[in-house]
Amino acid sequence: MARNNHPEETVNLILDTAFRLFMEKGYEHTSIQNIIDNLGGLSKGAIYHHFKSKEDILIAVTNRMTDESNRMLEAIRDRSGLNGKEKLKMIFKESIRRPVQNDIFTVAPDFHKNPKLLFSLLHDTIDNVAPNYILPIIEQGIADGSVKTNYPEQLAELILLAANVWMNPMIFDSSEEESHHKFMVFDQMLRGFGLDIIDNEMLERLQELTSIYQKSK
Amino acid sequence: MARNNHPEETVNLILDTAFRLFMEKGYEHTSIQNIIDNLGGLSKGAIYHHFKSKEDILIAVTNRMTDESNRMLEAIRDRSGLNGKEKLKMIFKESIRRPVQNDIFTVAPDFHKNPKLLFSLLHDTIDNVAPNYILPIIEQGIADGSVKTNYPEQLAELILLAANVWMNPMIFDSSEEESHHKFMVFDQMLRGFGLDIIDNEMLERLQELTSIYQKSK
Repeated sequence: MARNNHPEETVNLILDTAFRLFMEKGYEHTSIQNIIDNLGGLSKGAIYHHFKSKEDILIAVTNRMTDESNRMLEAIRDRSGLNGKEKLKMIFKESIRRPVQNDIFTVAPDFHKNPKLLFSLLHDTIDNVAPNYILPIIEQGIADGSVKTNYPEQLAELILLAANVWMNPMIFDSSEEESHHKFMVFDQMLRGFGLDIIDNEMLERLQELTSIYQKSK
Repeated sequence: MARNNHPEETVNLILDTAFRLFMEKGYEHTSIQNIIDNLGGLSKGAIYHHFKSKEDILIAVTNRMTDESNRMLEAIRDRSGLNGKEKLKMIFKESIRRPVQNDIFTVAPDFHKNPKLLFSLLHDTIDNVAPNYILPIIEQGIADGSVKTNYPEQLAELILLAANVWMNPMIFDSSEEESHHKFMVFDQMLRGFGLDIIDNEMLERLQELTSIYQKSK
């Protein structure tokens, strides 16, 4: 492929290629040159036209996954026939069940070397996921009596920071045993807000993901 | 002062000067050149001999404060006559009471522009404060019945991340009202572990600190 007059297709080609290489070699071991070499003749200029750095490509790859995750969150948020607590349980189950999680834990970027990615994750969590998806569900839960708090916005943030940041082995390296203990403390924390939603299936899946990550590092 | 054959004194002079300027002008508005101009003739080479960047100076300034904080944590950890819960309460009270907190909130570095500082804070929290100070107190609390959890290491981490990161207005910008709500959710979370330790005096002091930060930004 020599030229591409559709910038969206070019961007998607770059992201697909980068993602495949990140999966095969790991993020830290993939260079911008590796990505260029696999773009079938697309020039260095073309890639730098769209992305300033390898980390920018990683952020775009991550954003594409986030869009997918947001569609899942939206579908659960807008479902009828479930109370707030049941929706939160379904979100945790779905979030860790999705096969894309295996991919993310295989790419395994080191957040310490990629601070922009950490900030991008923190901001997406606090500025997007918390207010747009978790907050309305907690508010529903307060109204239907299944969630106990007077401060739904702050509870949404605390739950997400614990789940997406503290329990994320890519940010805080954890053994399988430590991951399991974190999940148990998370469970105890949630119960303080009326949320008995962690079950064995979730615990097993979480250990599987931690194990994938430990092998990919 | 033209020369200094005592590197420790030179480092302390740089840190004292930098800290004073950070306080007066704010971290973002202080340049390395400003610091040099205030060192009474110490050369640019001398400062770069000890510190690679302005952010490295900030980290050293922060570490010096952390050492002070660690001595306070150590004293409370090793006190007799208090149970685990009472020690945790005393730590929160002392941590926010100390006048140095006013200074920190006045320096008000923007963590997004200073990712090394964020990582340094995260690492100090997880690798030092949690295992060396909070963990032994939680273990004491489990033994004396005042703390309820089976996973003391993970509870130490969760409490510190909530207190030092989530509730830190320099990382997650919060209005006074939002800060207050975060503290209330933090209180509810702690109660799930048997820890009814937040009181009105703490709430008032926290609002004072948030207000100092909002004015310094």
